[in-house]
Formats: sequence, structure tokens, C-alpha cells
Amino acid sequence: MSAAESKTSTGITVPAGFRAAGVTAGLKDSGGSDVALVVNDGPSKAAAAVFTRNRVAAAPVLWSRQAVSDGRADAVILNSGGANACTGAEGFQNTHATAEKTAALLGISASDVLVCSTGLIGMQLPMDKLIPGVEAAAADLSADGGLTAAQAIMTTDTVAKQAVFTGADGSFSIGGMAKGAGMLAPGLATMLVVLTTDADVAAPALDEALRAATAVTFDRTDSDGCMSTNDTVILLASGASGTVPDGDEFTRGLTEVCHSLAQQLITDAEGASHDIAITTVNAATVADAETASRAVARSNLFKTAIFGNDPNWGRVLSAVGTTDAAFEPDRIDVRINGVQVCRNGGIGEPRESVDLAPRAVSVEIDLHAGTESATIWTNDLTTDYVHENSAYSS
Amino acid sequence: MSAAESKTSTGITVPAGFRAAGVTAGLKDSGGSDVALVVNDGPSKAAAAVFTRNRVAAAPVLWSRQAVSDGRADAVILNSGGANACTGAEGFQNTHATAEKTAALLGISASDVLVCSTGLIGMQLPMDKLIPGVEAAAADLSADGGLTAAQAIMTTDTVAKQAVFTGADGSFSIGGMAKGAGMLAPGLATMLVVLTTDADVAAPALDEALRAATAVTFDRTDSDGCMSTNDTVILLASGASGTVPDGDEFTRGLTEVCHSLAQQLITDAEGASHDIAITTVNAATVADAETASRAVARSNLFKTAIFGNDPNWGRVLSAVGTTDAAFEPDRIDVRINGVQVCRNGGIGEPRESVDLAPRAVSVEIDLHAGTESATIWTNDLTTDYVHENSAYSS
Repeated sequence: MSAAESKTSTGITVPAGFRAAGVTAGLKDSGGSDVALVVNDGPSKAAAAVFTRNRVAAAPVLWSRQAVSDGRADAVILNSGGANACTGAEGFQNTHATAEKTAALLGISASDVLVCSTGLIGMQLPMDKLIPGVEAAAADLSADGGLTAAQAIMTTDTVAKQAVFTGADGSFSIGGMAKGAGMLAPGLATMLVVLTTDADVAAPALDEALRAATAVTFDRTDSDGCMSTNDTVILLASGASGTVPDGDEFTRGLTEVCHSLAQQLITDAEGASHDIAITTVNAATVADAETASRAVARSNLFKTAIFGNDPNWGRVLSAVGTTDAAFEPDRIDVRINGVQVCRNGGIGEPRESVDLAPRAVSVEIDLHAGTESATIWTNDLTTDYVHENSAYSS
Repeated sequence: MSAAESKTSTGITVPAGFRAAGVTAGLKDSGGSDVALVVNDGPSKAAAAVFTRNRVAAAPVLWSRQAVSDGRADAVILNSGGANACTGAEGFQNTHATAEKTAALLGISASDVLVCSTGLIGMQLPMDKLIPGVEAAAADLSADGGLTAAQAIMTTDTVAKQAVFTGADGSFSIGGMAKGAGMLAPGLATMLVVLTTDADVAAPALDEALRAATAVTFDRTDSDGCMSTNDTVILLASGASGTVPDGDEFTRGLTEVCHSLAQQLITDAEGASHDIAITTVNAATVADAETASRAVARSNLFKTAIFGNDPNWGRVLSAVGTTDAAFEPDRIDVRINGVQVCRNGGIGEPRESVDLAPRAVSVEIDLHAGTESATIWTNDLTTDYVHENSAYSS
């Protein structure tokens, strides 16, 4: 990625054919920028997207799910400072009006404008501020606007999150931006992600690559087990490079970008003091490996133990024991930061020999039931997490 | 229950035919009592029990599940200061030896002795201390030993937990004791419960009544979503009253005792500052009501909001939205402490009108999808919870 980083443009405006902007509309109490716009100038307008599986989906999710269903999107308008979730018919009308305004400014069809929102649930967006913000963003579009767009979608994020992949011979690139620092969860998060590429890939192949990439990255990122009403990952392809990439290489590059963004989300998770990679190995199936790792990632007792620098392997076994994964309790091994604290479901090396001072923690669970594996990334549960989430209405 | 409370005997020794004791064997660093013994002097020795559904079950669970399978138990020996979980063959031998010692002291068969343990997972019990403790407990058995037994099974509990039900005409009674203050969960908790009755009820009917009572009490008590390796609820019937109770009355009384104990567990949950009753009403099925309430009870975001005295109904909807319960998102109503903060899936009364200062919090979710309802009892997620569980290895 070093070549890409040396350009002025970063993130979503690294691929050719895209312009972006981030402006301040006054939606956020903090006074930070809060409206972002991403435009695909083509020649292709192919698009794919995945959304939260939460049945209480925000208005922009309901809108964008429909708008992208034809495999085309010309632009994405995003706001922080308000989720537009649980806002009824008025909320949906506000999303519609935002898309219409964006379309009018760009001379395109509203049905080709995707909308994303993030922030507090259960309040109407101040349209008297948002619409002028959309106008300002459209006026400020530029081919190196990636960073300002990434900044405008931040909520409790402390840093903007961007990533870039460049194809083997520089013939195409993929860029991405993400926000989300708290409610990362299975089936996505309060997480907004926009991915761009100048490769020439048709919508069905984009969709397939996006689902493959998110399944092993964002879907395995589970900070606090909660699922948001607004999670959205959008992929836009301009075809401006003229390159039709090898399908496997494209999926691999897209997965790299998603993995990088997901790791940035975990590292910036609200109030966390440890980033934990929980890998289950030698499972009968990938689903078993994922289930076992996720059960541990969701155990508040395990997560508080890691906060206390306690390599409490009993809480790992206790969590795995709640699943239907194939295993024999007296065959499980557990390694924490490389130390085999549990052997054959019982006592292994002394827990004192595990050093949990570093932020990065690895937990390896060996089920001895097959050959498959999967990693879930999560955080510890800290007093700061409780503080931040008891104070921040979202 | 006032008649029962005026007796010297409390809890499990209120029903005729039972003796109990609690002694200090030196298993706990705190120096508190840690071995309890409960003996059924009959004439009936009918028994039933339910155990954790965790597949990583502690040695005493494996032992007791087998021992009670014939519907008979003469005694229960319990220890705090060590869970005897994840302790392999040696751990099982220690449970077996504890049952053998108890049986020898009482002149009964080891296969009629149930064993319960609670405390740290992944360490062997100090048998050189435990066996003398069993001897001391057997020597100290008395017909008013209910309270000392209840005290000896405490771990992080701050108070001993007991309850009593007396049949309509005083013809029979049911007593109970419980421990467990942290890991309450579905399918039970790190929760040990012993229930006694002097009613004359055969084992199959005991089993049926116990499953009915626990399904709507302990199974709906979900403090932190974690499921223990040691959860056990045991019911012993002496028949000493000579009364064969009406089945419905017996189940109702048993449910009352279990409900009282479950409420005491929630009230004493580690580090909690609010006790929260989450009731879903007008669900299509009881299972739907339970699922929706449990999803909210498991939302760390909702639970931290309550800690912060924030009636964050968006997090209630967001949690319900992750379930497969029957509902339309735009028909859900939510009341918090009686104030309808969410109407038709959208904004209702101002959240400022909700007073969350009191410890007791009620959340009512109306799905408008049927006529069934269910309540899940939980706690808020507090900085103290994180402190206690990061410091206490269990």
C-alpha cells in the first residue's frame, strides 16, 4: 500500500473516477464535520451493498437497500449526528428528501443515491441544517476529498479510518473508509463503510466479492455483541482504470481493505484496553469454529477478566460449553498469548506465566474435532466502556 | 410466610424431616464457612434436580446428575471455595470421595449423596481440608441448621438467601436456600439451590413441579448472560408431614419459593445498581415474549444506559430487532417505569419524564402481535460489575 499512501489522495478517492467531500452542517454538538458525499463519475456505476440484519432498520437502510437493488449507485450521501432510526414516516421522508436534494445537485436520479446516517436513535434529523450541508458538500467535491469524507462520518471514533489496496501491476485500486467505535457486532455494526474501486466489475460480481470479504472481516468483528439499526457497507465501482481484474485477486484485495478497516475499528473501540483475537482451531466445521470463538467474545465474564489482566481460561471453557459445536470437554486445549493454560479440558501451565500487559491478546481454542478454524476479533469489557456508553445516548 | 419466619428454624430446615449444618473447613481465603450438609431423614427420600446445560459441566454436576437419576437422594454435601470444574479425572475422584465420606458418616449409600461445589474454576479442591469439613458438618447437623447451611454456600453473595412457603392449612411446607450473585443466566446460573419439603410427593411429580417452577423463575433470571459450569437446583421431599398436596398447589408454592430466591439473587448481583424487570406483552407466543425480553436483558448498551439513568428506548428496539419474534417494527410500544417513551416504533413521551433514580426499573415492550407475555429479570451493567469480575477469578 506504500505507493498509494504517497499520493495526496487517500482512502476512497485513491481509485480513479471518484470525488468526495466532508463538510460541517451543524448536526453534531461537537461542531465537527458531519456530512459526507461520495460521487462515482464512472464510466461504470456498478454497486453492491450489505446492510444490518437488525429488523428495526433505520430509514436510510430501508431506502438504500431498495435503491441499490438494481446494482447501480451514482453517489452516497452520509451524515453523522443522527441515526434517523425509529423515526417513523417522517424519518423516511427525510431520507427521501436528502436523496432528492443530492440527486438534483448532481443531475442524477434520486433512486441512484444511497443514504447513510449514524448517531442518536429516536430523533428526527434537523433538515434545516442537513439540506444546506448537502449543498455545501456537493460544492466541495474533489478528487482528493477522501480524508475529509472519512472525518465527517466519525461519531465517537477518535481517528478517521481509511485503507487502500493496489492491484499487482498498479492496474486498479480499491479504497475504503469506515466509522464505528462502539457497537461492532455480528452481521456488521454501527458501522458505516464505503468502498470504492476503479476496476471494471459488474454488479453481480461486486456483490459476490463484497459478501465474501465482509463474511470474514466485519462479520467476525464483535466488540460488544450489539447489532446496530444502521450498519451499511457500500461498494462502488467506476471502471475508470479500464482493468477487468482477476476475480480472486479482486476479492483478496477487497478482503484486505475490509480487514484493515475492521482492525482499525477494533483498535478504536470505545473504552477498550485490549484488542482480543479469539481463534478456534481444529473444529469440525468453520461454523463450529466461528460459534465457539463468538461465544467467548460475548462472555462479559471473560472480557472483564482480560480487562483485569487475568488469563481466566475457565471462563473460556465455560463460554465454549454453551455452544453446540462438536467437541469433547476433556479434549479442549486453550492457549492465551501462547501459553497453554488449559490442557485436555483441565489445568495446564500456571496462569501466572501469561503476560497480559500488551494491548494485543490472542486466545487459541483447540477443539480437537476436525481441521477448520476461524477468528473473531473483540475487545475487553472495561470500566471506561461502561462510562462511555452510560453517558452517550445513541 | 410470616408463620414460618417466627420459628427458630429458617429456610431448608423449616419443613419437617430435615437437618442441616454449615461449618468452616478453610477452603475460602475469606475464612468464612464453606461446607454445608443437608440430610433428609424421611420417611420418603424422593428427589429431583435440574442442572446447568453447559456442556463443560463440573465434576459435582456429572456426579449428581447420575446419582439423582433414580429419583432418590438422602443428603446433599455442598462446598464453596472451589468449583471443581475443569479438573479432569482427579476432580471427579474428589467428588466421588466427598460423597463416599458423607455416606460413611451418615450410614447411607454414596449413590444417594448429591454433591455441589462453587468457587474458582480450574483448581483442585484441597481434600485435606474438605474431608475434615465434611466430618465437622455431619457432627453439627441440627433441625434448625438452615441458616448456617445457607451461609456456608455464599461466595460473592453479601447476604444468605432463604425462602419458605407454607401450604394453606399448614399441612406442609417448602423451604429453600440459594447462593449466586454474579453469573446468573439462562438455564440457571452459578447458582446452587436446595429446596426441601415435608410434603409426600413421588419423584416423577417432584421432577415435573421443579421443571415448571424453574422455567418461570431461575430460567428467566439473567444477570449477565453467562452460563455457569456448576448450576444446580435440588429438591428433596421427606414426606414427614404425611400430607399429599394438591399438585397445582404444590407447584404454585414451589414456584413462589423459587421466585423469592431468584429475586434475592438479582437484588444481590455483583456490582449492580438497578434491578430490571423486562416484560414483553402481547407477543404471539410465550417463547417470542421470552426471546424479546432476553435480547434486551443481554444488550450491554441497554444495560449501561440504565446504569447511567438514561431511558434509552432506541437500544431496547435495537435489541428486539435482532430476534425472530413476530412483530412489525412500526407497531412496537415501549414503556420505561410507566412512561411510554416509544410509540409505534417511534418517538413517544419525552425521555426526561422517566425517573430512573430508584433501584427497581420496569421495561414493558408491547409487540402488538398476540396475547402472550413473559418477564426476564436482569441488572444494569456497571463499573462496579467490571471491577468485581476483573478482580475475582472464578
